[in-house]
Amino acid sequence: MRATVMYGAGDVRVEDVADARLIDPTDALVRITRAAICGSDLWPYKSMPHDDAGRRMGHEFIGVVETVGSNIETLKVGDVVVSPFLWSDGSCVFCREGLQSSCLHGGRYGDVDVDGGQGEAVRVPQAEGTLVVLPVGTDDALMPSLLTLTDVMGTGHHAALTAQVGPGKTVAVVGDGAVGLCGVIASKRLGAERILLLGSNPERTALGQELGATDVVRERGEEAVERVRELTQHGAHSVLECVGLEQAVETALAIARPGGAIGRVGVPERDTTPTGVAFWKNASIAGGPAPVRAYIEALLPDVLEGRIEPGRVFDRAGSIEDVPDGYRAMNDREVLKFQIKP
Amino acid sequence: MRATVMYGAGDVRVEDVADARLIDPTDALVRITRAAICGSDLWPYKSMPHDDAGRRMGHEFIGVVETVGSNIETLKVGDVVVSPFLWSDGSCVFCREGLQSSCLHGGRYGDVDVDGGQGEAVRVPQAEGTLVVLPVGTDDALMPSLLTLTDVMGTGHHAALTAQVGPGKTVAVVGDGAVGLCGVIASKRLGAERILLLGSNPERTALGQELGATDVVRERGEEAVERVRELTQHGAHSVLECVGLEQAVETALAIARPGGAIGRVGVPERDTTPTGVAFWKNASIAGGPAPVRAYIEALLPDVLEGRIEPGRVFDRAGSIEDVPDGYRAMNDREVLKFQIKP
Repeated sequence: MRATVMYGAGDVRVEDVADARLIDPTDALVRITRAAICGSDLWPYKSMPHDDAGRRMGHEFIGVVETVGSNIETLKVGDVVVSPFLWSDGSCVFCREGLQSSCLHGGRYGDVDVDGGQGEAVRVPQAEGTLVVLPVGTDDALMPSLLTLTDVMGTGHHAALTAQVGPGKTVAVVGDGAVGLCGVIASKRLGAERILLLGSNPERTALGQELGATDVVRERGEEAVERVRELTQHGAHSVLECVGLEQAVETALAIARPGGAIGRVGVPERDTTPTGVAFWKNASIAGGPAPVRAYIEALLPDVLEGRIEPGRVFDRAGSIEDVPDGYRAMNDREVLKFQIKP
Repeated sequence: MRATVMYGAGDVRVEDVADARLIDPTDALVRITRAAICGSDLWPYKSMPHDDAGRRMGHEFIGVVETVGSNIETLKVGDVVVSPFLWSDGSCVFCREGLQSSCLHGGRYGDVDVDGGQGEAVRVPQAEGTLVVLPVGTDDALMPSLLTLTDVMGTGHHAALTAQVGPGKTVAVVGDGAVGLCGVIASKRLGAERILLLGSNPERTALGQELGATDVVRERGEEAVERVRELTQHGAHSVLECVGLEQAVETALAIARPGGAIGRVGVPERDTTPTGVAFWKNASIAGGPAPVRAYIEALLPDVLEGRIEPGRVFDRAGSIEDVPDGYRAMNDREVLKFQIKP
């Protein structure tokens, strides 16, 4: 089958690989009908050392169940399914608490013996815990929005929840990428009164305003902090950090109001954080890899009924053969988010 | 009047200073009847550069209102009052939200024109917002416990709240000082199922066990982390960081369970924190200077009715003339917490 393999920074290829196949009785084999390139895929695209073996890529996909392992009861052949970006058993102590991102028996797509989502098919481990059946056909017009439930919409929602967004709150979203824009959608959905979007790309911030941002802050660093203070007086109740770069994290900490909350979902560039500023004003810092599996059911009705349209973050589509150019275009910020249609 | 002045590391003196007096119409003059030395007073005691002018010390006290400014209506001469360790107006946006530690018009005892609490009397700015009238006489047997409401008990309570302690939770308290022990009391009071106390001083951890700790972890650093994992399998739901030293903060982050919460109240030794470990397991980091004023009313009934006995953290008492030796004894870890009786 065809699949995406990264061999090092800037070196993404679509190749023939061994067909996906069942290994464990808890597996399902899913034929992919829709997938995407994630902003986090750009991290290795920028920095991965050359590796002759290559790394299978992709963790955002929707597909059709083709075969199931002998222990699978709740999924059947032909089901249209969406997967969160991590697989999880659904039964361990953390899954039961809704923190499937810490599943004791879970893992990542693209790891040894697990296919990546940017290919023709995937072996899904722990399939009953992982997959959610969708009540639509594979050609449904809502597919782009449904596809965001694999990662970016759930991640934006996680940022909003951990930043304690709620009615009446002033929210600041740091980052105008796909996750930041989904953070805007999530904040509006949770009742935020005011949503400041910090980003410098005019097209993306314009989309952010359509999605719910009430103010755009184009400045960076200290100037951004000043601008947020002008707009909010004491800072934002809730800050969604959707970038992960050091400067973005510092800005997020600086613009939180005393007693405010910072929800972090950007993959951290650095392991250390200047938390002193948060300590002295009693601002909390929460977040991490989003337990997207927990949020699919919560967000699905709003997608199906058109109340939220996170699929608007996709601004280019192509076949799997176009994936290498999709990486290039996203890395060049020519494209916000690339959608793969077989 | 007599008051405590610090001139540099290890150099604490009790001296004659100008009598405390009213300045603003919102002031009250309080004659101090009970005070204490705080663990945070030991930071300058260890490190303050010599200063010819000296620094007035003390921020934990109970006393009797002696005179009031012309704008004071809710306090009257003769009231027995307890003060939180910061003064606050009680009316700004942050005070109304219960975050008096970020009061827009508040401040610290010992600053310019504001007396310190380790003396005979104090001018209390914003007295109506700051002081709470106690329904007892100055010789009441509960005075030691009431005195902890100025700081350490409220601070331990803040650590517990920001660490999201609640019924059924496994809690780890890092530090067996007065704040850590009050964190044990607060955790028990909030319904924690299990309370691990991390500390190496046998007398203090024994007291901690009397106050509610179910397990004691004497190890430090990596060994402490291992021990907590043995005791809890996945770590603690709630971690109260009551020290502030770099190693204690790192231990606190390491022993939190995935999805857990760390409440920090130890004055941070370092401004940066290795938050990566918390990010990847979705553990939140909250806390800061405790809004003790918000907690006095909440905790007061439990103190008055004897349900909590935070006054047990005091293990030595003396007059104001004994204060320099009190600093020495606390710094030498010969004394846990020193109480000043005039």
